[in-house]
Amino acid sequence: MDLRSEIQKAIRNVPDFPKPGIQFKDITPIFESPELSKEIVGEFFRLFHDEEIHAIVGIESRGFLFGLPLAMELGIPFFLIRKKGKLPADTVSYKYDLEYGSTEMEIHKGSIKPGMKVLVHDDLLATGGTAAAAAELIKMEGGKVAGFSFLVELKQLKGRDRLSTYEQPIVSLQSYD
Amino acid sequence: MDLRSEIQKAIRNVPDFPKPGIQFKDITPIFESPELSKEIVGEFFRLFHDEEIHAIVGIESRGFLFGLPLAMELGIPFFLIRKKGKLPADTVSYKYDLEYGSTEMEIHKGSIKPGMKVLVHDDLLATGGTAAAAAELIKMEGGKVAGFSFLVELKQLKGRDRLSTYEQPIVSLQSYD
Repeated sequence: MDLRSEIQKAIRNVPDFPKPGIQFKDITPIFESPELSKEIVGEFFRLFHDEEIHAIVGIESRGFLFGLPLAMELGIPFFLIRKKGKLPADTVSYKYDLEYGSTEMEIHKGSIKPGMKVLVHDDLLATGGTAAAAAELIKMEGGKVAGFSFLVELKQLKGRDRLSTYEQPIVSLQSYD
Repeated sequence: MDLRSEIQKAIRNVPDFPKPGIQFKDITPIFESPELSKEIVGEFFRLFHDEEIHAIVGIESRGFLFGLPLAMELGIPFFLIRKKGKLPADTVSYKYDLEYGSTEMEIHKGSIKPGMKVLVHDDLLATGGTAAAAAELIKMEGGKVAGFSFLVELKQLKGRDRLSTYEQPIVSLQSYD
C-alpha cells in the first residue's frame, strides 16, 4: 500500500465536529503507528531535503507533532507558533479574521534571523488563514517563506489559492475533494 | 558539556510569566537546536528502552514535542491527552482542581487497550496535577501506568510526592530547586 493510502486509511472521519455538518478529519490514529509516523517524516524529508530551508515553524498544537521530528531529521531549528499569550518571552503577533471573530498568532521575537528561509508546517490545510498568518510572522521577523507542508489538505476550502501569493511549494501528503 | 548542563543552558528564564513573581522556564530554545533535541530523545530512549512500555501519552501541547519522537524511537504508539473539547472522537475525561478553579483532560476512548503499560510524558513536572490526571485516564481505560518522563522538574512544587502513589520511575532530565 502506498503512503497516501496508508494515511487515508488511518485518518478517522468524525461527523459533526466541531459543529453540526462538519466531517472532521481526525489524524490522531496516525500517531498510534510508529511505522506510519516514521514513513510520514521520511516522506516530508525526501520532499524537502533538497530545498534551501533554514528552519521550520510548527503551528500549535498538531503542527508540533511532525514539525519537530522533521526539523530534527533535516538538522535545522524548529520554532513554535502559538495562540496569543502562550509563548512566555517577547513575541511578535499577527491578527487575522476567522469565520466568526478574529484570532492572533505569535512567535518569539528574534528566533527567525533576517534572511532565513522558513518552512511552515501544520497538520491541516483548510482555508489557509492560519498558515498565511505564520507566513506573515516569518516576514515580520525579516525571514523568507520557504514553502508550506501539511499532512492533509481539504481542497474545497481553497487554502492553496489563499497561499498562492507566498513562496512555493505547497505540499500535502493526502488531500480530500 | 553533559546533557543536563546543555539543557540548563538552553532553557530561558522568563520573569513574571504567566503572572508576577513566577520565574517561567521557557524550553522553546531547545527546539532551535536539532542536535540537542536529538540528544534529549536519545537520552529518554536510553532511560526507557529496557522498561516494559507499550505506549506513550503526551500531554497537550508541549508534551507532544518530545513525546511523539520518543514513541517513534521506541517503536510504540503515541496517544494525545488534550483539554476537554479538543479531541474529536469519543473520549473519556478526568476533572481535577487547579490553584483557582478546575480543568478537565481527555483521551480518545479505546486507544489504550486493557493491560497496556503506558508512559506519561510532559515537558514540565510542577505540582503534578496534570500528570496525575493523565495517570487516572490511563487507569480508567484499563491500562497501567509505566512511569513518568519530564524534561524539567520544579522540585519545590513537590510533584514527585503527588505522583508517588503511581508506578515508578519518575524521570526528569533537568531539575530546579
